[in-house]
Amino acid sequence: MRRKVYVEGPRPEMRVPFTEVELSGGHDPVRLYDTSGPGSDPEAGLPPLRSGWSSGRTQMGFARSGIVTPEMEFAAIREGVSAEFVRAEIAAGRAVLPANRNHPESEPMVIGSKFLVKVNANIGTSAVTSSVAEEVDKLTWATRWGADTVMDLSTGPRIHETRESIIRNSPVPIGTVPIYQALEKVDGDPVKLTWELFRETILEQAEQGVDYMTIHAGVLLNYVPLAAERVTGIVSRGGSIMAAWCLAHHEESFLYTHFDELCQIFADYDITFSLGDGLRPGSIADANDEAQFAELRTLGELTHLAWRHDVQVMVEGPGHVPMHKIKENVDLQVELCGGAPFYTLGPLTTDIAPAYDHITSAIGAAMIGMFGTAMLCYVTPKEHLGLPNRDDVKAGMIAYKIAAHAADLAKGHPGAQTWDDALSAARFDFRWEDQFELALDPETARAYHDETLPAAPAKTAHFCSMCGPKFCSMKISHEIRARGMRDKSDEFLAGGGKVYVELEPRETVSRSLDH
Amino acid sequence: MRRKVYVEGPRPEMRVPFTEVELSGGHDPVRLYDTSGPGSDPEAGLPPLRSGWSSGRTQMGFARSGIVTPEMEFAAIREGVSAEFVRAEIAAGRAVLPANRNHPESEPMVIGSKFLVKVNANIGTSAVTSSVAEEVDKLTWATRWGADTVMDLSTGPRIHETRESIIRNSPVPIGTVPIYQALEKVDGDPVKLTWELFRETILEQAEQGVDYMTIHAGVLLNYVPLAAERVTGIVSRGGSIMAAWCLAHHEESFLYTHFDELCQIFADYDITFSLGDGLRPGSIADANDEAQFAELRTLGELTHLAWRHDVQVMVEGPGHVPMHKIKENVDLQVELCGGAPFYTLGPLTTDIAPAYDHITSAIGAAMIGMFGTAMLCYVTPKEHLGLPNRDDVKAGMIAYKIAAHAADLAKGHPGAQTWDDALSAARFDFRWEDQFELALDPETARAYHDETLPAAPAKTAHFCSMCGPKFCSMKISHEIRARGMRDKSDEFLAGGGKVYVELEPRETVSRSLDH
Repeated sequence: MRRKVYVEGPRPEMRVPFTEVELSGGHDPVRLYDTSGPGSDPEAGLPPLRSGWSSGRTQMGFARSGIVTPEMEFAAIREGVSAEFVRAEIAAGRAVLPANRNHPESEPMVIGSKFLVKVNANIGTSAVTSSVAEEVDKLTWATRWGADTVMDLSTGPRIHETRESIIRNSPVPIGTVPIYQALEKVDGDPVKLTWELFRETILEQAEQGVDYMTIHAGVLLNYVPLAAERVTGIVSRGGSIMAAWCLAHHEESFLYTHFDELCQIFADYDITFSLGDGLRPGSIADANDEAQFAELRTLGELTHLAWRHDVQVMVEGPGHVPMHKIKENVDLQVELCGGAPFYTLGPLTTDIAPAYDHITSAIGAAMIGMFGTAMLCYVTPKEHLGLPNRDDVKAGMIAYKIAAHAADLAKGHPGAQTWDDALSAARFDFRWEDQFELALDPETARAYHDETLPAAPAKTAHFCSMCGPKFCSMKISHEIRARGMRDKSDEFLAGGGKVYVELEPRETVSRSLDH
Repeated sequence: MRRKVYVEGPRPEMRVPFTEVELSGGHDPVRLYDTSGPGSDPEAGLPPLRSGWSSGRTQMGFARSGIVTPEMEFAAIREGVSAEFVRAEIAAGRAVLPANRNHPESEPMVIGSKFLVKVNANIGTSAVTSSVAEEVDKLTWATRWGADTVMDLSTGPRIHETRESIIRNSPVPIGTVPIYQALEKVDGDPVKLTWELFRETILEQAEQGVDYMTIHAGVLLNYVPLAAERVTGIVSRGGSIMAAWCLAHHEESFLYTHFDELCQIFADYDITFSLGDGLRPGSIADANDEAQFAELRTLGELTHLAWRHDVQVMVEGPGHVPMHKIKENVDLQVELCGGAPFYTLGPLTTDIAPAYDHITSAIGAAMIGMFGTAMLCYVTPKEHLGLPNRDDVKAGMIAYKIAAHAADLAKGHPGAQTWDDALSAARFDFRWEDQFELALDPETARAYHDETLPAAPAKTAHFCSMCGPKFCSMKISHEIRARGMRDKSDEFLAGGGKVYVELEPRETVSRSLDH
């Protein structure tokens, strides 16, 4: 059985949520990271958890002054590390804690390569389809499946209203791409964009409580021709908008020339930069090309500029990258951006499977996570084809929670394997209900089992429909283990009955791994 | 539009099938590898394509004598390499061409690390569920989605009859695990198994035309205790059966002691060994342990033994392995087994997602393929939970064709990227129908697009529902390219109108990748 539990923090009324999976037969319960929030009435919004917490500086400002904030304490408990460790990573720029002071409803979390790999879910209305209520429902649905942050990518009418509903109901940090709303204000003509209009849009969103914003300030005028001969040109919307602006005005983009002013605004609200990769590759053919890496160098410069203002920074990454070119992306980003958290869209490892890009990209996401990417932006089955519905949001989230957890295991994150071990032990013991409850998606695991063996006794059966009762390897394996135990018992007696003589080669096994 | 085309081979009546995707607007058609066979009436079976082809020796025997067989020629055309290259790889043991002389219906194909990564689909009845007709339907369905080989893992009643129907209708090599049928003959009691009974079972299946057989001859008596303290013990059915037999009789398994005799039978029919990894890890906790690698060393010895008989060999691999431990598996296998093709089940990169193990394992499969694994055994969403139905077979196949193709790209297989490039070019040009036809699953890609933009004009629209008409990055990107072209035109005229002056930095782009 799953239930929500709270761990008391070091300050009054600080309660940090976890999902606790209770197991049968006296097995220790397993605690899982929980992003679902306290639940709310969409009309009323969530309670302002963080009201009265940090103010006056950014989390980075506090961290650099050696001050541990309540937000850092909260995030540290979720991660199972010390608050001081969280502080030190934020101070070094290697982690961010996105928390606009006007979004007190959010439960603090930390993004960085030394923490659990995070997953972002994109939602949002478009001119063609969907409503505000649907998007709030998708937000709740995404966090129920483990979304660590959510980006509202709405375009079309009612952008402001949609965003307000999303933020007031979001227990996780909310990100946006403000250039989308700015473009709506000039009727979709990129050439008419101005710094003043953009600034006004940023302030509007900052006041609402947006926690991080994608800013495509790395698309420089002289990079645009580098993308002209690509197979898929510029595939980032923000990137293409800024490229069009630069070409039309034949000058450097206002995002780049006004970057210092942007930093001041971001510092006022403690908004985190998500430096957008407007020139990311949109196909295998374009991966790791000069357009992409030229922009990354500029993002590195901007990262260091933002840090001078104590403003937190993430850096966005691709996109479409074949497996053998993934590691270079992380290595370069770490080098150029001083270890600022990398936040990548997939990458997709092949272009041939529209309708399954949650899978083509989960492969790349798991790998790039293993190499040190801090947050993965999910991709749904509808990528390249349409806007995701509820089912797509779930499919994308599941694929990416798998990728993130696989990366945590590969990085040796302390505690990550506890979950796998508990599930595998339940499987080996034929504790079917424990196995289902520990599954990333209990309902579907149970439903699949029910399809073949629906009767209740099958839930305690010592075999499954895959092998049937005669062929079950785990059943035979248990018999072997039981037999092994009898043999040990004989050995034990034959050996004089000394206790603490380890006869089984468990130690040998682990030692031999180091050969 | 897709259609089946045939390439004429170097001998009369040799016609090698491909799927040709015809594109609009004069773009070159794209040819894809085709495993679906000529189609058949299940009652009549397929025509005996290979009757009168190689006989008298194994493919390895011919290859070692310097003889190129019709089977090698056929497989070479499918791979786009020379027949001599196929011969040399088979002669070296680095590739296999599984083709029982009693299965003339099969279309020859080659499995090896220097060829396209292959995918196997498991089907088969169990005592609990499913019928013969259903399994033949699953076979056809699996090859329609690209299965390169199919394993019939039937247990329960009607094993012989099911297998006969499958082989007679299969255009791809069929593999089995003969110990399953042997166990049926002794009413499910492993202890009652004998060499004589097993030999008789092998001969029965050899006569029917099974192309490769999984033989768990590496489970030695002294390895069994190594698995006793694992989190998930022995998870291979064949492995657990042989372990139980060894312990009960306290002697080495008859598969190991009679291995030479097995080789003689395999040589008579040209059956390929798939040396089973009976001690493969069944959980993240058990990956790369001494039980697993001890068995692998024995499989290496047996590989070299089989080669003395000119018998072809593949070696099976895991299972459950976290990402950072995958490469060691391939490196050890190549070293111990002399480069014999590695054939792995996934591996699953985490245990936490029953119902989504096609995804947890596609991640591992893509990586292990990149490192050199020749064939990937698919995993369906029902793994650990039940027997796969039609939808599960398709889901598993799609996930694994993605993994295999991603690996082909990462290995730099010549020609692999043509498919990605064609699809991405179609995407950039808004040739929606071309994009759908080139997709791994055209029906689903089209259906997803239709969900949001069902009208026919949307199929030629220069935007999609994701961005809407105003925000489409590709549309803006086209405008930038058009503008760039106008600029070039101005530059061209300003520069005196000399032809062949390359102004665009395409060359620069590729050179700068080598920095």
